[in-house]
Amino acid sequence: MNAEATTRASAASDTPERVQDALADVAALIRKNRLVEGLVHEQAEHAEAGERGVLVESLVTRQNRAALRNKLDGLHAADIAYILEALPPDERLYVWELVKAERDGEILLELSDAVRASLIESMDTDELVAAAETLEADEIAELAPDLPQEVLDDVFQSLPVDEREQLRAAMSFDDDMVGALMDFEDVQVRPDVTLEVVLRYLRRFDELPSQTDQLFVVDRDERLLGVLPLPTLIVSDPDATVESVMKAPRVKLLQHEKAADAAGAFERYDLVSAPVVDTNDRLVGRVTVDEILDFVRERAETEALAQAGLREEEDVFASVWASFRNRWSWLAVNLVTAFVASRVIGVFEGSIAKLVALAALMPIVAGIGGNSGNQTITMIVRAAALGQVTVAHARTLIRKEMLVSLLNGLIWGGVMGLVAMLLYRDVKLGLVMILAMTLNLLLAAMMGVLIPMTMLRLGRDPAVGSSVMITAVTDSGGFFIFLGLATLLLL
Amino acid sequence: MNAEATTRASAASDTPERVQDALADVAALIRKNRLVEGLVHEQAEHAEAGERGVLVESLVTRQNRAALRNKLDGLHAADIAYILEALPPDERLYVWELVKAERDGEILLELSDAVRASLIESMDTDELVAAAETLEADEIAELAPDLPQEVLDDVFQSLPVDEREQLRAAMSFDDDMVGALMDFEDVQVRPDVTLEVVLRYLRRFDELPSQTDQLFVVDRDERLLGVLPLPTLIVSDPDATVESVMKAPRVKLLQHEKAADAAGAFERYDLVSAPVVDTNDRLVGRVTVDEILDFVRERAETEALAQAGLREEEDVFASVWASFRNRWSWLAVNLVTAFVASRVIGVFEGSIAKLVALAALMPIVAGIGGNSGNQTITMIVRAAALGQVTVAHARTLIRKEMLVSLLNGLIWGGVMGLVAMLLYRDVKLGLVMILAMTLNLLLAAMMGVLIPMTMLRLGRDPAVGSSVMITAVTDSGGFFIFLGLATLLLL
Repeated sequence: MNAEATTRASAASDTPERVQDALADVAALIRKNRLVEGLVHEQAEHAEAGERGVLVESLVTRQNRAALRNKLDGLHAADIAYILEALPPDERLYVWELVKAERDGEILLELSDAVRASLIESMDTDELVAAAETLEADEIAELAPDLPQEVLDDVFQSLPVDEREQLRAAMSFDDDMVGALMDFEDVQVRPDVTLEVVLRYLRRFDELPSQTDQLFVVDRDERLLGVLPLPTLIVSDPDATVESVMKAPRVKLLQHEKAADAAGAFERYDLVSAPVVDTNDRLVGRVTVDEILDFVRERAETEALAQAGLREEEDVFASVWASFRNRWSWLAVNLVTAFVASRVIGVFEGSIAKLVALAALMPIVAGIGGNSGNQTITMIVRAAALGQVTVAHARTLIRKEMLVSLLNGLIWGGVMGLVAMLLYRDVKLGLVMILAMTLNLLLAAMMGVLIPMTMLRLGRDPAVGSSVMITAVTDSGGFFIFLGLATLLLL
Repeated sequence: MNAEATTRASAASDTPERVQDALADVAALIRKNRLVEGLVHEQAEHAEAGERGVLVESLVTRQNRAALRNKLDGLHAADIAYILEALPPDERLYVWELVKAERDGEILLELSDAVRASLIESMDTDELVAAAETLEADEIAELAPDLPQEVLDDVFQSLPVDEREQLRAAMSFDDDMVGALMDFEDVQVRPDVTLEVVLRYLRRFDELPSQTDQLFVVDRDERLLGVLPLPTLIVSDPDATVESVMKAPRVKLLQHEKAADAAGAFERYDLVSAPVVDTNDRLVGRVTVDEILDFVRERAETEALAQAGLREEEDVFASVWASFRNRWSWLAVNLVTAFVASRVIGVFEGSIAKLVALAALMPIVAGIGGNSGNQTITMIVRAAALGQVTVAHARTLIRKEMLVSLLNGLIWGGVMGLVAMLLYRDVKLGLVMILAMTLNLLLAAMMGVLIPMTMLRLGRDPAVGSSVMITAVTDSGGFFIFLGLATLLLL
């Protein structure tokens, strides 16, 4: 029992501790340091404390700083990035200054855009150049949008010619293209050598590039002939030639293809890496699954944020002004659509003055249309993103969605109509309610299909903006239908 | 030029064609077949056509069917799944019947839940048992929730004892636990053997399990001692012992851990596979990055759907009734909150009757609160999911969000207040508008932080339901604040 406990303890010690624990430790160390530093500062200001007191305190500070630095040195770059993101701005800078300069580059890579930008602001040109120079060309390209031009120029000058070319190439792609996910660490072998030779060649490496699950077989002109998975290399006869055991690559990616399509291929075929070729079938690099995983996560993130009208991922501890800038445009657009809806109501002010119950009931009609329309749009946007729905399906879908709306309208319209009848003791008002809710739901169904379909046809991303548009339609439409019907039938 | 074109064509032919092209081909073949079959059917019905005509037509049909079957046989299981999802129900069943029975299992695995359920419904017990028997234990566990009990019982009986245990284990985990992502295809080696021996052992496999990037080093009791990455195996001296070159695993997962935490580790450390151990540090299986990629994608999917109130992923071609069932509960909840807001307005009917402009302006006040509150919630839910925000930050965040709201209130409230003043030539009405918008924005800020924080403290997922709650608060609150202020200050 005791022996087992010991084994478990020692086993646990060789795995890195969980990142949450590390965060708690770092936060505690920071607070301890700053408390002491605060004391020292206070004492120095009051000038009452003797020289000695200050000295002792700053010794403690230095020890704590060393402990914190030690802690950070032992952590993976991604974990330090995680901790930096979870700290409020002043503590974040405090930790950032304690991180070893040669790790700055890899840590910056792991940070979210907002936090990365705030740390880059705190660094001078020399520090940034030094940080960038520790990175591969494809990694520098990832940081490039956040770096000042002079830093980029310096880094560019310091690179060897081939990496300069790679950097130029990598920087020429949009974030949503395969080229932006690509790295240049592909290991290439020739088809006519034996596996024995390949193995000897590989042994010259200290380590293979991360995520190397296959080697790429190319001819003299770097044309991709096939792939040699490491497991195949291992289980095959060492005297066999590469050519005789290599496989056809399951996919070849092109630099200008959409990254989302590449992600789809990785998901479907369970890939770890895939070759990227140019239009002449020459190997230019590879994409690895870690980049794809980041891409899929970030894309979902961006969509969720866009849905709520946040232009970009926001540092939760961002300044009030930064938050305002990130959010104002969405609020402005919504305010315009709300104003239009308000004017629709304005047209019927005479009716409302005569029957004030209309004012209380109209938000219900508008609301259910917005909710139902958003359901339809969400479903279609998802299906379209997976390529399962195209403009050709519009008619089938409109018919189906309108039937669902009719059902919803009769049921929920019926319920609310009954409630309105009982509340206001007015049968005709209840009937208008049923009719208006059903009609607004039908409008929501039609527009819920047509809006994303139209955006698809125009080649735009239906995930962005569809929700604002449907709400605008169902609000103004709902008010118009309900107040219009009431004016016609009740007054 | 010509030579190059040939090379390119031949190069293209050894990669599988793009799945979109395959879908188009299949769809065309189906339509051709059904057209012909329809003709045959018609001819048979009219009984005018001679025997010979029918014979010729059905020959054509048979040829087309064979062509389609051929096409399907050449496609990856995931591609067939993709095609099945993109086809309307009747064409989907037509294709499904043409797929080779022994591939049913792997294809079912790749399908979305909704489509999978519809195909399983079309199969009888024997077919399902046969399909399940082609799968590994962890894969059967994935299908299990959709399989009828009698099929599960039959499959269970047919499994060898150890796989039966694995199936029982795999089925005992919730979808969001590591145990549900785990497979049992880990390759184990002993620490005291040489790499040469390991290589010889591996050569006995025809192929290593997919996504094998490392072997697991275990002692006699199956306790995990370390990992041996394939690249290390390849680049190291074959005479070295496993022990001398093995590495500490970067993470060890536990079966009962949250799958989301495992996904975080894969992302942070760029893993391809990770060992899963029990509480005694014994190796029980592994998780691979393809499962993680699916998990991350599906989770984002589910969240996006939940946001719009779709209970689960919906087959776009689902029946009206299935769609209704998937969506009604969300609409019902929203209807209740809309009704409450309507009653708040009802309280102020007297005020509205006196100043009907209030009815037109009140949706603007409610709307901006809802939009702003949703921005706050979305930002916090994202940050909380990444572990960057905890309940401890609530106060800092409320202060910041309220400042952002104050800024928004003064600016947008100012704009709308001015518009209201000019429209209705009423300065006091304009001032009430500014005040009400600012107050509702402040309410939205406070609740936008408190709602997700409270859900976090209660251990619930703040992504689900937060949006409905904030809208309920800012609607009812917005109407109450605006109409209440107007009643106090204007009437």
